[in-house]
Amino acid sequence: MSAGNLPVSGSRLWDSLMQMARIGATPKGGCNRQTLTDLDGEGRALLRRWAGEIGCSVTLDRVGNMVVRREGREPSLPAVAMGSHLDTQPTGGRFDGVLGVLAGLEVLRALHEAGIETQAPVVLINWTNEEGARFSPPMMGSGVAMGLFSEEEVLAKSDPSGAIFGEELRRIGWRGEEDPRSLQRLGAYFELHIEQGPLLEAEGIPVGVVDKALGQIWLDVTVEGEEAHAGSAMGPRRDAMMAAAQLIQAVEEIALEAGGDGRATVGRLLVSPDSRNVVPSRIWFSVDLRHGDPAALSAMSEAVRRRAEEISAARQVSARVDLFWESPLIPFDPALVDRLRQAAAGRGLPFRTMPTGIGHDAVYVARRVPTAMIFVPCEGGVSHNEAEAISPEWAEAGLVVLADAVLATARPVREE
Amino acid sequence: MSAGNLPVSGSRLWDSLMQMARIGATPKGGCNRQTLTDLDGEGRALLRRWAGEIGCSVTLDRVGNMVVRREGREPSLPAVAMGSHLDTQPTGGRFDGVLGVLAGLEVLRALHEAGIETQAPVVLINWTNEEGARFSPPMMGSGVAMGLFSEEEVLAKSDPSGAIFGEELRRIGWRGEEDPRSLQRLGAYFELHIEQGPLLEAEGIPVGVVDKALGQIWLDVTVEGEEAHAGSAMGPRRDAMMAAAQLIQAVEEIALEAGGDGRATVGRLLVSPDSRNVVPSRIWFSVDLRHGDPAALSAMSEAVRRRAEEISAARQVSARVDLFWESPLIPFDPALVDRLRQAAAGRGLPFRTMPTGIGHDAVYVARRVPTAMIFVPCEGGVSHNEAEAISPEWAEAGLVVLADAVLATARPVREE
Repeated sequence: MSAGNLPVSGSRLWDSLMQMARIGATPKGGCNRQTLTDLDGEGRALLRRWAGEIGCSVTLDRVGNMVVRREGREPSLPAVAMGSHLDTQPTGGRFDGVLGVLAGLEVLRALHEAGIETQAPVVLINWTNEEGARFSPPMMGSGVAMGLFSEEEVLAKSDPSGAIFGEELRRIGWRGEEDPRSLQRLGAYFELHIEQGPLLEAEGIPVGVVDKALGQIWLDVTVEGEEAHAGSAMGPRRDAMMAAAQLIQAVEEIALEAGGDGRATVGRLLVSPDSRNVVPSRIWFSVDLRHGDPAALSAMSEAVRRRAEEISAARQVSARVDLFWESPLIPFDPALVDRLRQAAAGRGLPFRTMPTGIGHDAVYVARRVPTAMIFVPCEGGVSHNEAEAISPEWAEAGLVVLADAVLATARPVREE
Repeated sequence: MSAGNLPVSGSRLWDSLMQMARIGATPKGGCNRQTLTDLDGEGRALLRRWAGEIGCSVTLDRVGNMVVRREGREPSLPAVAMGSHLDTQPTGGRFDGVLGVLAGLEVLRALHEAGIETQAPVVLINWTNEEGARFSPPMMGSGVAMGLFSEEEVLAKSDPSGAIFGEELRRIGWRGEEDPRSLQRLGAYFELHIEQGPLLEAEGIPVGVVDKALGQIWLDVTVEGEEAHAGSAMGPRRDAMMAAAQLIQAVEEIALEAGGDGRATVGRLLVSPDSRNVVPSRIWFSVDLRHGDPAALSAMSEAVRRRAEEISAARQVSARVDLFWESPLIPFDPALVDRLRQAAAGRGLPFRTMPTGIGHDAVYVARRVPTAMIFVPCEGGVSHNEAEAISPEWAEAGLVVLADAVLATARPVREE
């Protein structure tokens, strides 16, 4: 252990995770604590109580982001922040988001118990509505804070039952007075999160140092052929389904050939006219492309367009490829990424550098604030699922890396 | 022209087609005359009026099948029948079904005008609900007549608005007293129909002599992999969509390799969980396989199962292939098929022998009654569509072949 190591307690973190998991616990061992429900309010209240027990202040902004603050020797310095989210999917797990918040709490507890004063303030943020399951889109709290969404727009969002975000926030009593955009003045932001993928577990590595968020391009592909009876001969068919199947295969090949961080997903597909004995005239499907290299990402997108043209020409169908949405590559802060590597090395923990292909509050925060993320494994890569599971050892590995990096960034005041 | 040729009128047939097409005419030039609607009643009434004008009787059975009868010299002989259906799809054309009924009417008119007496009675049948668009399944009238469906079952069917078949039949005034199953005693059945496929037009051949209905096997395929985030690495994915796309491609290859009459269609596909940024865990799709050779058909089905096993093993997903429905190969009556060939040859019309891959009333009738079908081309193979089109020449080609074959089968009484 290096001198800067903070004596955090993995078992206390685990106990807190299990206590929080009781709020919204589901029969299958998961959590249903959706944003701005009464249960979300209960989870927030528990965090506020725990924060109060270690002398931290809690402030709220106008979209409900909670900021737990431990003052620094120099209150005017930009705060060093940790954070994630307490809200879950409807059939969510006990760790997605919660681990990052409660590990941050454990860092504050350890600082408190060890009586360590830091130069910069240390804050812990529970972002509102990361999941986007009840109110879409996801990452609303961090999105408003970083200026990507307007406050008014978010407050007016409605859930499928017609409930309004702003009204629900007020109803559960967690609407504050702070300007969310004041969080753009943070000095650094660290987020610990479960990987939500199987790589770390498969490689037996407890810590992922996340150095960037992959760029994403979302496409709409529409293949149009000609409706025909299922009894008609194969030769003259202009079968939209068969053309789409070939193109979907090509999309996979494109991601595999792109190598490295290349990913491609076809998550939705609609058939028209959708009848067992009618050759489809029209197939629509979504394509989600991701890559850590912007040039490689746009090459993937171009390759999809090229293959769509080739396949449609060969099959005498038409294929239209439209851009639905894109998100640029977000590099994390190199100095903070290095600090995470040093923290892992300092604790003797194997780690690997990796991108996140998944959206997190950190990805929005990184647009305005120096940011880095830590991943820990989750069993089988399963998440957004009641079966989501991690081991206490994995939780602790992420915790100590977070703790040491935060302390190194906020800088302990040395007693001379 | 051989001596037995009947002087039918192609232009009178065309006029009748155009008159019938006014009942339920759509703005785009098609027809919406769905079964057991008021418009269906109007179409039936027009046919009854035309039949009366040439001295034919019209009887009705308990599921609404209309039988127009021209008595023979020997009324006790099994009748020689022609038929098809006047009902259409919601956005149907002017010829699908209607051509066969009104060509049959033209044959009766010509017999009447020429004063030809036949040994056997000649009947024309307008089958109830061939399309199955309003009340599913299709071919209900012929299905009940041939004993494939029970009368009670069909009378109790409801349409999407909740209307009941039996009540609608009574409401429009076309429920009769005859036992539908008495139609199993027909001596022969000929059905003229548009091809609903592009082969005849492409080959420039005006007459298809249909010698069999292809066997069909309908499969349900369920591919199950593992849900994953679209940001997760490609390597460990067990992507149900990519496996399904590969298997759908294989289904097409299997049909192409089966050659000849082999057909394969994937007309429906459902994705779960159906989200743009989630790797699908489950894909269900339908497979419709057809072939004129029963051994080749079951080999196709086996090949789908084998490829499903290979692909699922290679991709570490599971693929279940379930039989949903099957229909055997139905050979048509060789003597009647020959009679159609002779009729076409006798008129100097190029023809080809071909199977039907599509269900028709004739396919059910063939289970109990010697049957054959005649196809004529339709433009671009388009059908079940307001754009459905044929030329008056094609209509006449089918008409004369029908007329001559019917006359040869019912046998004119020679005046000595």
